[in-house]
Amino acid sequence: MSTSPSNGKIIDGKIIATALKARVAAEVARLKAEHGLTPGLAVVLVGNDPASEVYVRNKGIATVEAGMNSFEYRLPGTASQDEVLAKVRELNADPAVHGFLVQFPVPDQISQQAVIDAIDPNKDADGLHPLNAGRLASGLPAMVPATPEGCVIMAKLAGGDLSGKHAVVIGRSNLVGKPVAQLLLKENCTVTIAHSRSHDLPGLARQADILVAAVGRPNMVRGDWVKPGAIVIDVGINRVPAPEKGEGKTRLVGDVAFDEAVKVAGAITPVPGGVGLMTVACLMRNTVIAACRQNGIALPKDF
Amino acid sequence: MSTSPSNGKIIDGKIIATALKARVAAEVARLKAEHGLTPGLAVVLVGNDPASEVYVRNKGIATVEAGMNSFEYRLPGTASQDEVLAKVRELNADPAVHGFLVQFPVPDQISQQAVIDAIDPNKDADGLHPLNAGRLASGLPAMVPATPEGCVIMAKLAGGDLSGKHAVVIGRSNLVGKPVAQLLLKENCTVTIAHSRSHDLPGLARQADILVAAVGRPNMVRGDWVKPGAIVIDVGINRVPAPEKGEGKTRLVGDVAFDEAVKVAGAITPVPGGVGLMTVACLMRNTVIAACRQNGIALPKDF
Ligand SMILES: NC(=O)c1ccc[n+]([C@@H]2O[C@H](COP(=O)([O-])OP(=O)(O)OC[C@H]3O[C@@H](n4cnc5c(N)ncnc54)[C@H](OP(=O)(O)O)[C@@H]3O)[C@@H](O)[C@H]2O)c1
Ligand SMILES: NC(=O)c1ccc[n+]([C@@H]2O[C@H](COP(=O)([O-])OP(=O)(O)OC[C@H]3O[C@@H](n4cnc5c(N)ncnc54)[C@H](OP(=O)(O)O)[C@@H]3O)[C@@H](O)[C@H]2O)c1
Repeated sequence: MSTSPSNGKIIDGKIIATALKARVAAEVARLKAEHGLTPGLAVVLVGNDPASEVYVRNKGIATVEAGMNSFEYRLPGTASQDEVLAKVRELNADPAVHGFLVQFPVPDQISQQAVIDAIDPNKDADGLHPLNAGRLASGLPAMVPATPEGCVIMAKLAGGDLSGKHAVVIGRSNLVGKPVAQLLLKENCTVTIAHSRSHDLPGLARQADILVAAVGRPNMVRGDWVKPGAIVIDVGINRVPAPEKGEGKTRLVGDVAFDEAVKVAGAITPVPGGVGLMTVACLMRNTVIAACRQNGIALPKDF
Repeated sequence: MSTSPSNGKIIDGKIIATALKARVAAEVARLKAEHGLTPGLAVVLVGNDPASEVYVRNKGIATVEAGMNSFEYRLPGTASQDEVLAKVRELNADPAVHGFLVQFPVPDQISQQAVIDAIDPNKDADGLHPLNAGRLASGLPAMVPATPEGCVIMAKLAGGDLSGKHAVVIGRSNLVGKPVAQLLLKENCTVTIAHSRSHDLPGLARQADILVAAVGRPNMVRGDWVKPGAIVIDVGINRVPAPEKGEGKTRLVGDVAFDEAVKVAGAITPVPGGVGLMTVACLMRNTVIAACRQNGIALPKDF
């Protein structure tokens, strides 16, 4: 098995995420030994959406594997907004919890924005609080959303110094597109943000030295949208019918038509096995960063 | 005199700013009559930088002309950071002050970021607090920096619905470039942000349906950087020698070589007489918005 982060053209999320988790675990061990500090990550799950259950379980396992404390709180799907906000305030005040998140989506009776606004920005493991979005945009230390951070780590491993490169981000959600654009701007890329109202997406995409697709449309980005040699980061996770696997079966595909794009790109993340694997690893990293900031402990520069 | 906001190709800042100030004054009159509310804007000046003195005086005049309360606080150039922060906290707590700003630059012993962070985001007339940057980025109601708001008002008056148009912003400061980019994204433009590390600025600029220059380099954007018919918004204010006016004389020019660009552009803001005139008008508007939000008063949709 290759130990290089990019196996030929393919940027291997498993290798990169495993290395990042190991780095986090080593840092956690150091924090315990040198500072008697065990970082803690809490997750609040409201209701029992099956996809959320899986994701929360994976987060819990990864947290424990990294040597951190994992806390899980479950509220019934009928919980009121006040009950969720009360839990948020409890976690804001809990000194053992350095980072936490409320798993989205939440049931309709609860305002997602009200939940985000109630989270202590310093414990905002998902980086969704507007203060963190603004700190990121203003070039200040921030809690950064995990998936965008994962995208940029992968792009840098594939492309080295990104300064001066033209990055084109398709998608402008608060969760992915916008923070990816901010992070790439911080890396000194020229950044273009495109979305559903953009004209000539193929022409825009073809300018990209770094092309990030965060749309949620299976195989939208075709091979001839990709500039030869470009780094392609595919954030999309789309479930599509897979009759070849049997009746009623499905499979996951990205926003990029992988088989076409891989022939043109210099490096590309697969789906599955790409960006998706980075999210939990970056969330672990965020928790360590939060724990250190809250305790005035300096992190190694390269962390 | 033309009453159209764009006198031929030239987007006339005087006409647009005058109209906006009149709109603000009318809204202030309504707030007084219907709600007994007089919006108040305070400015804190530390030291006596001559350019800042002029700017603060102009703000004070415009505030009074709009029918609002104007407050001015002066601290000596030797004031400590604690003294400035104490003044900020006093204004945060003053119910007659709905918006305020500390005039930058401040003397070296004072951290600009510490001042910004201390301002109540709801009273942050200049929109520089990271919470406002993040609220803007997240699509939430925010206090928006005045100059960027002025740029977008001018672009919309010249170009109508901007949706789907390609905007290229040269410059990425927290004060101008980044918020302009966010506002244009909100108008559903495709947005490219370029800066000192960008390659091939002329080629990037030539793609722009809306070209915003916020760099601080006299006449950097040449005529052949402009796509025929584009809207050009020149934020730059640069003082250059003007020997033709006499020895030692100077004049103001923008970041765009106006005489060249005006031949190609569909519409263009001059310097002086363009964006520069919008800043104070937008600050007046911000103060009214802040006063209404703080008092739970709805503003007309088109305000
Ligand atoms: N762990 C992970 O790997 C991870 C994490 C989060 C998300 N994802 C995946 O990433 C994808 C995007 O997620 P999201 O949360 O950002 O989605 P989202 O909130 O739905 O945003 C989608 C964005 O794509 C744009 N868009 C939609 N249709 C388009 C079209 N035809 N052409 C160009 N742009 C178009 C939208 O533009 P408008 O703004 O104009 O509507 C919007 O900005 C999804 O597949 C999601 O499952 C993966
Ligand atoms: N009321 C008004 O009309 C008003 C208000 C504010 C500012 N202004 C004027 O607007 C201009 C910009 O102000 P600012 O506060 O944004 O300035 P700033 O903080 O100095 O930012 C300048 C930006 O321009 C970029 N830049 C510098 N040299 C460049 C080059 N050769 N090519 C491409 N980009 C370059 C910088 O890139 P890096 O980030 O890579 O360094 C930076 O992002 C100034 O002339 C200022 O006087 C006018």
